[in-house]
Amino acid sequence: MEPTDRLTRQLDFIAELDQLKNVERMIRVIGGARKENSAEHSWHLGLMAHVLAEYAPAGTDVARAQTMVLLHDVVEIDAGDAFCFDEAANVGKEEREHAAAQRLFGMLPGDQADELRACWEEFEEGATPEARFAVALDRFQALVLNGRNDGGTWKLHDVPRERILERMAPIRDGAPALWPVVLAVVDRVRPEGL
Amino acid sequence: MEPTDRLTRQLDFIAELDQLKNVERMIRVIGGARKENSAEHSWHLGLMAHVLAEYAPAGTDVARAQTMVLLHDVVEIDAGDAFCFDEAANVGKEEREHAAAQRLFGMLPGDQADELRACWEEFEEGATPEARFAVALDRFQALVLNGRNDGGTWKLHDVPRERILERMAPIRDGAPALWPVVLAVVDRVRPEGL
Repeated sequence: MEPTDRLTRQLDFIAELDQLKNVERMIRVIGGARKENSAEHSWHLGLMAHVLAEYAPAGTDVARAQTMVLLHDVVEIDAGDAFCFDEAANVGKEEREHAAAQRLFGMLPGDQADELRACWEEFEEGATPEARFAVALDRFQALVLNGRNDGGTWKLHDVPRERILERMAPIRDGAPALWPVVLAVVDRVRPEGL
Repeated sequence: MEPTDRLTRQLDFIAELDQLKNVERMIRVIGGARKENSAEHSWHLGLMAHVLAEYAPAGTDVARAQTMVLLHDVVEIDAGDAFCFDEAANVGKEEREHAAAQRLFGMLPGDQADELRACWEEFEEGATPEARFAVALDRFQALVLNGRNDGGTWKLHDVPRERILERMAPIRDGAPALWPVVLAVVDRVRPEGL
C-alpha cells in the first residue's frame, strides 16, 4: 500500500530535517571538543523550555514555546548559521531565511506549511510571550555553553562585554529571573575594564 | 547576586545535558557521513511528534509526548547507547539506566527530579497513549534513516527482516497509520527471501 500524498510530503519533510544535523554553529559543546550543530542545540533548548518553564512570563504556553525552539533553526538547512557577532555574515540573512522557510515548510501539506511557517515567524518577531521566552532560551543556552567554556567564542573572537550584554538583552524581557545569572557569568568571564 | 539553590541545580542539570551530544548511536545520519548522536536524534523525534501528531492514538497529549521524546535518551549520558540488535550490549541495560536516572534527574530540585523521572519511566513502560506514541516515533525515526540509507545499519549488521519487523512492532500500536510505511520500507531494503 502506498502512503497518501499527505503522508509522503510529511515523510519527505522529516527526512529533509535530518540536514540540520550538518549545520555547524560557531559555539562549541561544553569542554570545547567540537562545534555544536543546530539540531542538538535545538534539542537542548527544547528541554530547557521544560526545566526552566517557571521563569517564563505569566500566561506563556510553554508547550508552544517548546515546539518553537525545536523549529527555530530549521531555515538554516538552506540559509546556514550566521555567527551573531559577524556583521558581514548577517548581511542578507533575513532574505535567505525567508526563502528557506518558503522552500522547507512548503514541502509540507498546505495546512502544516502555514502552521509551521507562522510558528517560525512568531519566533522571529518575538512579540508573543511564547516567542519572548523562546528567544530568551536561545540566548541563555549560548551563555551556559560559553560560561562553562571559560568565555568560549566571546573570548576567541574578542567580543566586548557590552556587545555580549546587548545580545543577551532579550533574556531580561523573556525570562527576567535569569538576568542575574547572565550578569554573574559575564562578570566572571568578561569582567569590566578588560 | 547569587542564583538560588533551586536555579543552581537547574543550571547544573542543563549543563550536564550537554553530554548527550557526545553519545553516539549506531545508526548514521542520512547520507551516511557519520553516526547520529542521541541529542540530535531526540530533536528529530521532537519535531516528528509535532508533524505526525495526527497519527497519534485518540486522546494523546502530544505536547507531553514531545517532552517525553526529548527526555527519553538522557540516561544514556551515564549508561551509553546499546545497539538494539546487539544482545550482549543490552545485558544489564535496565540497571545501568535506572542508576543513571537516579543520578541525572537527582541533580534537579526534588519536584522536578520526580516529574522528569516519572516522565522517563512512563516512556520506558510504554503503557499510556503518550508513551506508545513516543516509542513509535523512536522506532519510526530509525526506519526513516535506514530507509533513506538503503538499509543502513540493518544491512551493515545483516539484521534479518523478521527482527526488524519485531523491533518496529510498537509502531502498529502507537501510530498504526504509519505501519504501511514500515512494511513498504522493509520490503524495499530487506525483501523476503534474501
